[in-house]
Amino acid sequence: MIGTPLLPEIRELIEKRNFSALQRIFQDWLPVDLAELISDLPEDEQAILFRLQPKGLATETFEYLDFDSQQNLLKALTKKHVSQILNSMSADDRTALLEELPGPVAQELLKLLSFKEFKIAKTLLAYPEESVGRLMSPDFLSVKKDWNINQVLEHIRTYGHESETLNVIYVVDDAGKLNGELFARDLLLSAPDRKVDEIIEEEKIVTLTASQDQKDALDAFKRYDRVALPVVDSNGYLIGVVTIDDMLDVAEEEETEDIQKFGGIEALEEPYMDLPILQLVKKRAVWLVVLFLGEMLTASVMAYYEGELAKAIILATFIPLIISSGGNSGSQAASLIIRSLSIGEISIRDWWAIMRREILSGLALGCILGVIGIVRVIGWAIAFGHFNTQWTYIAFTIGLSLVGIVLIGTLSGSMLPLLLKRLGLDPAVSSAPFVATLVDVTGIVIYFSVASLILGGILL
Amino acid sequence: MIGTPLLPEIRELIEKRNFSALQRIFQDWLPVDLAELISDLPEDEQAILFRLQPKGLATETFEYLDFDSQQNLLKALTKKHVSQILNSMSADDRTALLEELPGPVAQELLKLLSFKEFKIAKTLLAYPEESVGRLMSPDFLSVKKDWNINQVLEHIRTYGHESETLNVIYVVDDAGKLNGELFARDLLLSAPDRKVDEIIEEEKIVTLTASQDQKDALDAFKRYDRVALPVVDSNGYLIGVVTIDDMLDVAEEEETEDIQKFGGIEALEEPYMDLPILQLVKKRAVWLVVLFLGEMLTASVMAYYEGELAKAIILATFIPLIISSGGNSGSQAASLIIRSLSIGEISIRDWWAIMRREILSGLALGCILGVIGIVRVIGWAIAFGHFNTQWTYIAFTIGLSLVGIVLIGTLSGSMLPLLLKRLGLDPAVSSAPFVATLVDVTGIVIYFSVASLILGGILL
Repeated sequence: MIGTPLLPEIRELIEKRNFSALQRIFQDWLPVDLAELISDLPEDEQAILFRLQPKGLATETFEYLDFDSQQNLLKALTKKHVSQILNSMSADDRTALLEELPGPVAQELLKLLSFKEFKIAKTLLAYPEESVGRLMSPDFLSVKKDWNINQVLEHIRTYGHESETLNVIYVVDDAGKLNGELFARDLLLSAPDRKVDEIIEEEKIVTLTASQDQKDALDAFKRYDRVALPVVDSNGYLIGVVTIDDMLDVAEEEETEDIQKFGGIEALEEPYMDLPILQLVKKRAVWLVVLFLGEMLTASVMAYYEGELAKAIILATFIPLIISSGGNSGSQAASLIIRSLSIGEISIRDWWAIMRREILSGLALGCILGVIGIVRVIGWAIAFGHFNTQWTYIAFTIGLSLVGIVLIGTLSGSMLPLLLKRLGLDPAVSSAPFVATLVDVTGIVIYFSVASLILGGILL
Repeated sequence: MIGTPLLPEIRELIEKRNFSALQRIFQDWLPVDLAELISDLPEDEQAILFRLQPKGLATETFEYLDFDSQQNLLKALTKKHVSQILNSMSADDRTALLEELPGPVAQELLKLLSFKEFKIAKTLLAYPEESVGRLMSPDFLSVKKDWNINQVLEHIRTYGHESETLNVIYVVDDAGKLNGELFARDLLLSAPDRKVDEIIEEEKIVTLTASQDQKDALDAFKRYDRVALPVVDSNGYLIGVVTIDDMLDVAEEEETEDIQKFGGIEALEEPYMDLPILQLVKKRAVWLVVLFLGEMLTASVMAYYEGELAKAIILATFIPLIISSGGNSGSQAASLIIRSLSIGEISIRDWWAIMRREILSGLALGCILGVIGIVRVIGWAIAFGHFNTQWTYIAFTIGLSLVGIVLIGTLSGSMLPLLLKRLGLDPAVSSAPFVATLVDVTGIVIYFSVASLILGGILL
């Protein structure tokens, strides 16, 4: 079904201007598949193919195109065709396109809208980015609660064609205040002569507001297992509807932000490939420089121990091994805690239970690595035939340091996200690189302290 | 609406055995909210509250409870009550519960099912974990294509009550083969005397198979903007339906796995708090030990350069700073590329374009850190009054190494996920700690090579 393997054939047909063959190919395609094919074509061929699709599907195909292809088509198609598409697009997809376009272009397009659609577009664009308002559609169907099911069915057949969803019909009073939701399920299961208010449960409406964060909407959809939720203003008047298909996209965006933050990078607003390199560098440079400045502390701490280092160069050779173990255990703990916080498995209230678990885990993990470290150092010395009692002391320095550092890593990685959340900051800021940097400095101090303790008078 | 702030009041009412007051409170609650409240109560009070809910909602509330509370209730309720709930649960939620329970308990419960439900449960449990079969429900409604809309509406009113969804009705032939989908939207918008086959589009059905991975189902839901998808067997016979509410949970699980893997930890199958500490340690120890063994290479490499270190201890003090910069830039690149791969923004085909972008980004980021590094070393030397030309050489050693290491970090971080994917492995294995470990070894080699080059004959 999907276009890509057919691409060479189709491009040949385009070159031969064999439009009837192309039309035959496309008549059974779904708009989303046609949109994918169009997006894969060079810009000058996109418009040719777009015009060939079966009547009535143009707008739907357009809605599935990526922003680049949409912009390209807006340039290539006639003003009349563009106006037709924009006016028939669903309001939420149009908002997404308009917010992506440069200001002057968006203004030009707004002029092509009918008065009614223009008003809708202006209203939706007035809501802040990432708010529910940008996702909602004002095309919903409302009925009155004293109607019977037959009246509702008649009303739907007459006025339902433009509605964003028919899986839920909204029940409003004469003033437009939301009274209840009539689910398609209940509508279909009820006898034709039953009244709407015998079916709906007025007390149990879940609503969104237009200024709410899209993440809140996502949480509500998950919690209440809905396929659509109504949006009301501060007085309880119904102003729009959000459908679940937009929620999968919101979920994807939210997760992408979380993952990018955890990788130590500012969230990108555009796909990786579309971002100009200069901006890509900027998004990464900020955090990288901050981390670098933090990590400079390690050089200062190391300089402080230069005396010890000069006496026992061997200590220096284990530094990367030791500090990286702290960083790794910290990354593990941070990824666990950030994610559990984000999906609501744990909350700040649980900090003490989490701390107990992490102290135990950290000690266990530290002991595992510590034992491996001791075996490695002693084994190595024996293998190279220069084993003496000094090596035993060095081995235990490494082993004990590892226990301490892994414990500190685990604790920092798990407590930092909770602390950030407590301070009202985003827990995801405690990224893997951030935790690693924090633990590096502590790790060096622990290592040299243990070394002084064990090796004082022997090597140092 | 949500229970937690009310918890003390409600527990007081439970202690006073004031059931009528409790019932008054709950009659307007949604099952999901009641379930949340019950989950927050101590085990011995859960059953009391569960029994108090309004008639007809017990099963729905039960479906919203977490597994721990579900198990607790199964023990506390009468056999008859348990049997009632299990038989009326939707098949997909029941599968999820049964797969969570220990084998013997699940077997006991299966015995409580009616013959029909038992057969369904057995069939669904036979599909592999994480497969579409485990999510699907065999309760769907099917109609014939020569029926008219009125007949369909009548059929729904008579047989639709048990159907998992009524947002889509399936059209099958006499043998049960899937012919098409009738969306509630089209059903509601069509005149009562129209025939089903005038409305459906036979060629354009999107189907799932029971053995497919749940991730594939998620992709199909996103791509085709559906609220339900039919599941067919290898002969095209309709065997079940998957609804979108399960997809938000699948999306969440998939993302959690990705994030945990990126943090360098095996994906947990249970919530963080429910996992016994021993298992938590095991999930983390495997990767931590692998990374530790890998990182041991740094000690060997460092030992190789012991001569250089002995001559210039100062070199050792910058090692953590330098290798961590490589690790950080690698984590950034890996998080970007893994995520873009996972949501399909890029594919392996794009490797060359990605490599070009990353070489440019890596050089730019390396130069930024390099310049800061040079300024830091020279500035420090001047500030402490021991500046001489040697320090200039050291500064440039640090600066040049940083450019090389950040470039290598960026390249490893971006290319490794692509390479893993090419080899048919999971790109998410190239976690932040994994990339950091890889880059650490390379970083030390680069650093000492640059040092030999610049400082040879001066310090070394």
